[in-house]
This record gives sequence, C-alpha cells and structure tokens, in this order.
Amino acid sequence: MNFHIMTLFPEMVLDGLRTSIIGRAEEKGLISLEAVNIRDYTTDKHKKVDDYTYGGGAGMLMQAQPVYDCWKTICENINKKKDSETKPRVVYVTPQGEVFHQKKAVELSKEKDLIFLCGHYEGIDERVLEEIVTDYISIGDYVLTGGELAAMVMIDAIARLVPGVLNNDESAQTESHANGLLEYPQYSRPEIWHDKKVPEVLLSGHHAKIEAWRMEQSLERTRLRRPELYEAYLLANPSKPEKNKKRKEGL
Amino acid sequence: MNFHIMTLFPEMVLDGLRTSIIGRAEEKGLISLEAVNIRDYTTDKHKKVDDYTYGGGAGMLMQAQPVYDCWKTICENINKKKDSETKPRVVYVTPQGEVFHQKKAVELSKEKDLIFLCGHYEGIDERVLEEIVTDYISIGDYVLTGGELAAMVMIDAIARLVPGVLNNDESAQTESHANGLLEYPQYSRPEIWHDKKVPEVLLSGHHAKIEAWRMEQSLERTRLRRPELYEAYLLANPSKPEKNKKRKEGL
Repeated sequence: MNFHIMTLFPEMVLDGLRTSIIGRAEEKGLISLEAVNIRDYTTDKHKKVDDYTYGGGAGMLMQAQPVYDCWKTICENINKKKDSETKPRVVYVTPQGEVFHQKKAVELSKEKDLIFLCGHYEGIDERVLEEIVTDYISIGDYVLTGGELAAMVMIDAIARLVPGVLNNDESAQTESHANGLLEYPQYSRPEIWHDKKVPEVLLSGHHAKIEAWRMEQSLERTRLRRPELYEAYLLANPSKPEKNKKRKEGL
Repeated sequence: MNFHIMTLFPEMVLDGLRTSIIGRAEEKGLISLEAVNIRDYTTDKHKKVDDYTYGGGAGMLMQAQPVYDCWKTICENINKKKDSETKPRVVYVTPQGEVFHQKKAVELSKEKDLIFLCGHYEGIDERVLEEIVTDYISIGDYVLTGGELAAMVMIDAIARLVPGVLNNDESAQTESHANGLLEYPQYSRPEIWHDKKVPEVLLSGHHAKIEAWRMEQSLERTRLRRPELYEAYLLANPSKPEKNKKRKEGL
C-alpha cells in the first residue's frame, strides 16, 4: 500500500511515521510513504502558496494552483508506474469532515494508493477541493495547528491494518477492540507491587473463569467510561451480558 | 505551560512537535516540552520494560516499576523548581478513556504542568495506572500502534490555546469552530480558476450579505456532513436559522 502526503512539512510527517512499527513496515516493503511539498509546485516567483480570503476575514488561505499541480504530479507518477489511468482517493484532513473511526480505517486500508492533503493556515480554496478531494475526514472534534498530525494519525491507524505490518503479538490489540468494548485491566510481573496483588482469578490457570472475569471487567469499564458504547454493545449483543451474569453466578 | 511526556520514543514526540507553531512557542518560552524515556528508569539489567500478561493472552504489557519511577522523578523535578508539593495531572493516552474534544483542550490548557503517559505494546500494568493517572483520554475510536501520536495531537490542541502561542491571524481559526458549526467554503485569488468563479456575493463588499451567505453555507454544510452537530446547534440556538432564512428571503 502506498501513502502519498501533500504537505508544507514533509520532514515532520516522514520523521514521525518512520519511528517504530510503521517505519519497520516501510523497510520490509509492505507500505511506502511519500511526502510531497506543496510549495515546490507554486508558480509564484516568491514561492508563496497562500493569499487573503475573498469577502474578508483574518487568516490566509492556501491557493488552488499549487495544490492542484502537486496532486496532478502525484497522480501522473502513480499511473506511470502502473501504466494505467486510475484516480486514487484523496483524503482532505479537515475539522469539517466526517469523524474518523476504526471502520473507516479498515475501509481505507484496502486501497492500493491513498493521497492525503494536509491544510495549513485558514484552509484551502474551495474550488480545488471540489476538483480533487474524495473524502473529507476529521480525526475528532478539536482544533489542531495543521493537518499533518491528523494525517499521521490516520496513516498509522490504516497502515497497521495492512497484512504483515503487525506481528502476531501486536495484532491481538485489534481483537480487543473488535468487539466494541473497552479492554479489561491487565497485570504483569511482579505478583505483588506496592502492596497491590494481581487479582486471584488471573493466577488460577482456569481459562473459563479468566475469560468470564475479563468480560465482566470490560462490560463494567465500558458502562462507566463510555456509556454510549455500552448501549450500542447491548443492542448488538442482546444475550451476552446475561450469559456472563449466569457464568458469574455459576462461579 | 510545561508539557512532560513519558514515552519509549522521546525523539519522535519532540521532533514532531517542534515543527511549525508549537516549536516557535517553545523558542519564545511560552511553553516547554520535555520527553522522558521510560526505559531509562527500569531496574531490569537488560533494560526490559515489558513482560507477559497474567492470565494469558498475546502481547506484552509495560510493567509498573519503570513507569512509576519515571513519573516520580518528573514530579520531584517539577516540585524542586517550584519549591512546593503539587501533583500535576497525569493524562494516560488510551483508547479506553473519554474521547478528547475542544472543551477538554480548553480545560487542560489552564494547567501549569501536564504529564502525558504514552503506552506501547498491549498496555500498562493496571496497578501503576491506579496510582498515578488522573485522566484517561482517547483521541478517537480507532486503534494506533502506540500512544505517541495521540499525545502529540492533544499537546498540539492544548498548546495552541496558551495565550501568545497563536498570532492574531491564526487564532481566527478558533472562532470559526467556537459556534459549533462547520466552516463555510473559502476562496482566494485568482477570481477565476479552472473556469470556476468566486461566488459573486464575496466580491460585493457588502458585509451583511457576506455574513448571511457564510452563515447559510455553514448551516447547510453542517446539516449535510455532521447532522448531530447541526441538531445540537439548533437546540442551543433556536432562533438563529429562522433569522437567516428571513435574511435570505430579503436579499
């Protein structure tokens, strides 16, 4: 899978992503990362990429021309390699998009090429967005200084789903979220730390009991911290908590 | 405001944050960034910080000891500087927390010191979380390879709210989100690009008409892309859309 990032800060994006797991995946050839500087495509002689907003208002806007030409070059290079004519999806990272979630990450991880457009300043001229953007996505309801960190978050979430990127140990993490509940508490050595003992059941070796305890803890934690996820889980799994309650009573 | 980040990847966090606006704020002395490597605090002779999970399951867990000792040192250093005994808030970056949003960013931006704990591997031993963590926060309902990017996102969102970090032009961005609606489309030079003309009203110089057009666009965009925000806005501002409708009819 190939990620192409349109940005004014290419080093920031690449340095941040190349640490740890995503960098290892790139070295293995499972994914590729390309960050293209939008500024390299401006036809302005002072290398300017932004200008004032029509109708007034504080803040500078990124202009259509450099964004469009940067995108065109990326697409041409992709098609040259493939010897075909495809239009990869273009994700514009914006607080004005739909909110990113795990299902979207799964969907996007099936693409061969994915282009990310990172805004800076007050935004980007609407006309170029209309022409090139296929997906408007936000990582959450908060405001950042630019789109780069948000794009890195999405790429990290998507890239880890590409087959082979995570090893078996790591991929277990996914499963613990796949059921729609928050994860249960976990404990590692030593058995006693700061006078706190690991819960007895986890030392019992009794797998059914351990599983029941963990399910119970997951349900309770989800109910307390994310009631809306808990409700959604109950709707989707009407019999599960009952089953667990019975299991618990049977202990 | 001082940010202290507990992580296994201190360079990644600092390099990513020091680009652009947040780095400039650090140079100006408005904020400080300190990333502390949890691995430096392990008492294990092989510098190991993780071990298997009691009760079984794939994945390694970060152990309590290095996390606790790292936290203790950070707190001691903060108190030495201040010559006082305070316990700064500790944010654990985890998909099992409440979901981060702009109000939380505003709340946390009022702290003097803020400690972020970034997990890696399968998670962290529950006992040390119980002892040190004050806030469990997630940046959204998706899974990342580690907590670092999520901590960087939160720090970026919080730091930009510290007075002086944004200049006047940039701070306009906040206002455009403060009303609970998505921003209207924006246009910059040239007036015609790819046969697309900037909407006439924006060239009119008629401020009331421009304002009415932008409000209308914001409402319509919010209704289409984020219906739940639109509903919330209508509830909070029962008269506003009517007013705009009348304005539109009057044009």
